[in-house]
Amino acid sequence: MAVSTKAEILKAIRNSKDYISGQEICDKLGVSRTAVWKVIKQLQAEGYDIEAVTNKGYCLLSYPDILSSSELMSRINTKWAGQRVYYHKETESTNDDARYLAEEGMEHGSLVVADHQTAGKGRRGREWVSPPGEAIYMSLLLRPDFSPERASMLTLLMGISVAEVISGLYKDLKVNIKWPNDVLVQDRKVCGILTEMSAEPDYIHHVVIGVGINVNQTYFPPEVADVATSLRLCQGEMIDRAQIIVAVMEYFEYYYGIFAERGDVSDFVHIYDSYLINRGREVKVLDPKGEYTGVAEGINDKGELIINKSDGTAVTVASGEVSVRGIYGYV
Amino acid sequence: MAVSTKAEILKAIRNSKDYISGQEICDKLGVSRTAVWKVIKQLQAEGYDIEAVTNKGYCLLSYPDILSSSELMSRINTKWAGQRVYYHKETESTNDDARYLAEEGMEHGSLVVADHQTAGKGRRGREWVSPPGEAIYMSLLLRPDFSPERASMLTLLMGISVAEVISGLYKDLKVNIKWPNDVLVQDRKVCGILTEMSAEPDYIHHVVIGVGINVNQTYFPPEVADVATSLRLCQGEMIDRAQIIVAVMEYFEYYYGIFAERGDVSDFVHIYDSYLINRGREVKVLDPKGEYTGVAEGINDKGELIINKSDGTAVTVASGEVSVRGIYGYV
Repeated sequence: MAVSTKAEILKAIRNSKDYISGQEICDKLGVSRTAVWKVIKQLQAEGYDIEAVTNKGYCLLSYPDILSSSELMSRINTKWAGQRVYYHKETESTNDDARYLAEEGMEHGSLVVADHQTAGKGRRGREWVSPPGEAIYMSLLLRPDFSPERASMLTLLMGISVAEVISGLYKDLKVNIKWPNDVLVQDRKVCGILTEMSAEPDYIHHVVIGVGINVNQTYFPPEVADVATSLRLCQGEMIDRAQIIVAVMEYFEYYYGIFAERGDVSDFVHIYDSYLINRGREVKVLDPKGEYTGVAEGINDKGELIINKSDGTAVTVASGEVSVRGIYGYV
Repeated sequence: MAVSTKAEILKAIRNSKDYISGQEICDKLGVSRTAVWKVIKQLQAEGYDIEAVTNKGYCLLSYPDILSSSELMSRINTKWAGQRVYYHKETESTNDDARYLAEEGMEHGSLVVADHQTAGKGRRGREWVSPPGEAIYMSLLLRPDFSPERASMLTLLMGISVAEVISGLYKDLKVNIKWPNDVLVQDRKVCGILTEMSAEPDYIHHVVIGVGINVNQTYFPPEVADVATSLRLCQGEMIDRAQIIVAVMEYFEYYYGIFAERGDVSDFVHIYDSYLINRGREVKVLDPKGEYTGVAEGINDKGELIINKSDGTAVTVASGEVSVRGIYGYV
């Protein structure tokens, strides 16, 4: 049974307002009664609470927080982003998986999702702690036709997408972005983004955008408890992870379309800056040539952070690390 | 027997002006007589014409055009470039090999060399025809600590290195560079360079510089015979490929050291421009936003090509493709 057929059957049952008969599913999707029955059994075994009533049909009463390919592909309403999902219950790193699949020819917009990473990666080779079952670990493959120096802007697009999704779903929460790529909720980190690319100096082979979102964790180790949190801890309830993934794909596809046409982030500067926690605050720039401080004003069309230095000059920061006083201290 | 010990024994025999005794080799390298004897047998089997005379010792009379790790490591006099050589008689692509080894932790300066590529790669996914035994296919792994936008300059450094080696060895030949990355001899292509990187937008994981050099080919297919040639066809003699590789590593290490300190190619602009075949010639720029023509003046400190347009304005070309009128026509 192809994943897409399974996803289609799941979608038909979910979208039905009342019971949907096996025959109706067969007619709609052009599959056999036996095939439908097998899929229902599979879904029930995976944890979907599907009621089967003679002469009425099937009804999805409730289902657990599931991230399978069928679950995601039955819910994602996009043209390309996340249209093909590769799900792993456990893997080393979704970014590595996406990269290997990219080399095998996996198409633009393919998404790798895992419930658990055993070797999750952060920026610059750091670790991204990835305990099982409670968070989102996903990597989106892109095959852009622009040059490598624009890849940094993709990180910003993903940051905006995640921030928009969280603030759209949970309107009472304070959602911010710490330039360039962390999403904070209630002043603590909820999401990190790791963009990696394989490129020639003037030509991108592919880009993988890895996204880690703390969703349902209730515990963080003491060494990060002050700076990290989860949506569940902020919102006080279990969160449906698939809903978050689906919404992020939709937002990202929308923003990517505008970005690809425009060639820069000029259309998003105002949205990004509205989330920017660094904005108007004193920041310390850890430049290899020497540290300096200034006030972050926002981003420019290229996604660089504009900083007004104490001597009255303005500089833009394109890479490296900016530490925000008062948020993480000087860490 | 470790590759390096084999290389050391080969080096001792090669560097000896007269016969060198087995005992002298043992004393020098701290290995047993049996070990020396085994290595000599191996080398003879590989094609080295090593004469063994009782009471005198060993003498290297001649040797064929061999690219093994031992051969190369016994001849390379550098600090890091090519200090570790991974040789394949046949492989798909030395760039891919170097990339896989990079992910396994292979150090900066490691070199993959092959006698034959079955899936050789050119720029932008094109094929690089790689018949066995006559050419050089090699890929150098670098782990630079500068940002990705500088990677394009590494291509230029390698181009200069190859051009310097060829013009140093064969002073009567006309050696040129076609910006950014082809080396031409007698107006035909002898060398192509494919630089690939794995990077975050502001952080390089590693760079692989692939170099293909036409050395001893005597035949090119009709479709490329007008634009490609080999050193042998130009010089009229068989060429020792290892000598070329060794010299390219030495030049590259030298130039890389200056570049890494300086941060740009300002110290090489005059050398590069002296080889630049496009210089002072009309070129056609295939910009996606529209083609235009102009006269190429040389490169700037970033390695970009400076073009004086017919309307009197100057532009710089950082990427994309420039076609040189009169050399390859408009191809």
